[in-house]
Amino acid sequence: MNDPGMSTGLLSDTDSIRSVQWQDDHLLLLDQRRLPSAVRYLRLADAAETAEAIRAMAVRGAPAIGLAAAYAMVLTARSLSERSPNLQAWQGGLREAASTLCAARPTAVHLSWAVDAVLEAANKTPGDWRSVLGFVTEMHRRDVEANRRMGALGAACLPARVRLLTHCNTGSLATGGYGTALGVIRAVRAQGRLAEVFVTESRPWRQGARLTAWELVQDGIPGALIADGAAASLMQQGRIDWVVVGADRIAANGDVVNKIGTYALALAARHHGIGFMVVAPEATIDPSVAKGDDIAIEERSATELLEGAADGIAAVNPVFDVTPAALVDILVTEKGVVERPGRSSIKRLLAAS
Amino acid sequence: MNDPGMSTGLLSDTDSIRSVQWQDDHLLLLDQRRLPSAVRYLRLADAAETAEAIRAMAVRGAPAIGLAAAYAMVLTARSLSERSPNLQAWQGGLREAASTLCAARPTAVHLSWAVDAVLEAANKTPGDWRSVLGFVTEMHRRDVEANRRMGALGAACLPARVRLLTHCNTGSLATGGYGTALGVIRAVRAQGRLAEVFVTESRPWRQGARLTAWELVQDGIPGALIADGAAASLMQQGRIDWVVVGADRIAANGDVVNKIGTYALALAARHHGIGFMVVAPEATIDPSVAKGDDIAIEERSATELLEGAADGIAAVNPVFDVTPAALVDILVTEKGVVERPGRSSIKRLLAAS
Repeated sequence: MNDPGMSTGLLSDTDSIRSVQWQDDHLLLLDQRRLPSAVRYLRLADAAETAEAIRAMAVRGAPAIGLAAAYAMVLTARSLSERSPNLQAWQGGLREAASTLCAARPTAVHLSWAVDAVLEAANKTPGDWRSVLGFVTEMHRRDVEANRRMGALGAACLPARVRLLTHCNTGSLATGGYGTALGVIRAVRAQGRLAEVFVTESRPWRQGARLTAWELVQDGIPGALIADGAAASLMQQGRIDWVVVGADRIAANGDVVNKIGTYALALAARHHGIGFMVVAPEATIDPSVAKGDDIAIEERSATELLEGAADGIAAVNPVFDVTPAALVDILVTEKGVVERPGRSSIKRLLAAS
Repeated sequence: MNDPGMSTGLLSDTDSIRSVQWQDDHLLLLDQRRLPSAVRYLRLADAAETAEAIRAMAVRGAPAIGLAAAYAMVLTARSLSERSPNLQAWQGGLREAASTLCAARPTAVHLSWAVDAVLEAANKTPGDWRSVLGFVTEMHRRDVEANRRMGALGAACLPARVRLLTHCNTGSLATGGYGTALGVIRAVRAQGRLAEVFVTESRPWRQGARLTAWELVQDGIPGALIADGAAASLMQQGRIDWVVVGADRIAANGDVVNKIGTYALALAARHHGIGFMVVAPEATIDPSVAKGDDIAIEERSATELLEGAADGIAAVNPVFDVTPAALVDILVTEKGVVERPGRSSIKRLLAAS
């Protein structure tokens, strides 16, 4: 195992995993396709290799993808530095790398945001790849710091001792480290307040069974896997106090787009008077989208769903669903907590410094 | 393919499957463990072989298991007849077979009900195995007839053209033929009124993906497989009109015990004003159980859930959940339809001739 602390510091018993790491002079990516059966790091030397790893889903989770691409820009900068480039070659080389990286997942907003930020910074220090590394390391540090802050804020909203349920993977694997919703779970655990966390399998990709379960086992957090369809029954039996999930996108009115299955959990939680918490960095809020209905829900190829199913059956395989803001009890961002989020409270959050 | 019509008659375009069949002098069981990848019939010659097939889950679904065991009693009766038994040998041999069969799935109430009924009938016609076959064929015919009646009654409660959602497998595979909830779907289809049926995968056993999807494809019924977690989102999008499910057991107050995941579907249906129909033979109602809470929910080994999951994670794997009667809009039995079932309306149903 490498020393992931090098990039991000502050590792602890409940926070030992970093899926994106800079080590010596290359980028290490924990290959999420092979988890949980094998823990293998890809060692990447340039932007083309990194773009291929992103395209092939070796790394997933918007912040983790963004950081992987940002470090790939450092790889490009270093390679250019070795050739003592003039300003034009430096800018051109980095622009080309940026374009290769963004093309790997054209719809990933966070990816192009991260790459553009590095490009802008690099153009201020031409020929100095160590400055670019410094910029990206700081970006990575800020991501983990934001996650830790969300973890602390979210944990403070929960009862003294709590039984949680989470969905999909929102942990160290999906982010620079620590995680968003899983970060709240880590914070509650670190404070000795976690009774248990139930993890939905999260069909059809099984991020819960493969990735979240793996993170929990790695960090000794007491968890139990359940079928997606079992969550409502556990709530009915009084075995869950709060549901804690992440978000892929949040509309201006607080509607939450997240992994398919989130909406059903929110409905069941509200029916049972169980709290529903969404944990996501401020950047997840898209003020240009008025409400959840305005977001087209992407349908994916149904391969995962159809494996082992009867030949000839059709399938409908939406990736995300929309949870109306009215079902969200608490929205946690690194800038603060919003109870019962709505258009005006979210506007205030975004306006706050 | 055999001619399953021999046992049960009345096959049609939308009803071509019989998982339990008597043919010439032996019992054929469609091996459900091998579906959907292979359609193989087990040819069973005695009660011990049949008990083993039941134990090994080659046949599943309470009515289908009961009929398989009933035909196994015929196999025993025939074998005894060939030896021209005295009354004591006839009764003893059948009692022994009954005990072997019931031990194959000790908690299956329907299994022992069916075996006991055959035992009683056989003891009235000692030495005459053809009478026993006649009794069981009639039992099988009545099961299919009850299912067809439920199909017609349920279909009559639905709008002119309808988009349905179903859960788990309640079809020809689980019954003597036609099915309960899937029987309603067959009836709607036969009447040309089915726009589409969504089938939940039904994790962790995937009866929806493996068995219901297979039945739909066999009978040319237009269906689409979805992840369990996607149902609420489809309801939100207005793509489903009614949910139609079966039941494993119904309490005296109308609470429904059914495959895990049913309760979440009922909650989501009610939230969206979508009808929720339960289709089950009268025998499913257990007047000795006052309410759903009184039924202990069995937890199964978590093997199916843990396959491919992270090593070391715990799992909670309940088989059934309880849907409160208040969430059921219509209960369909072969004796009639009960709207908004409750203690008194169910009592009236059971009392009716």
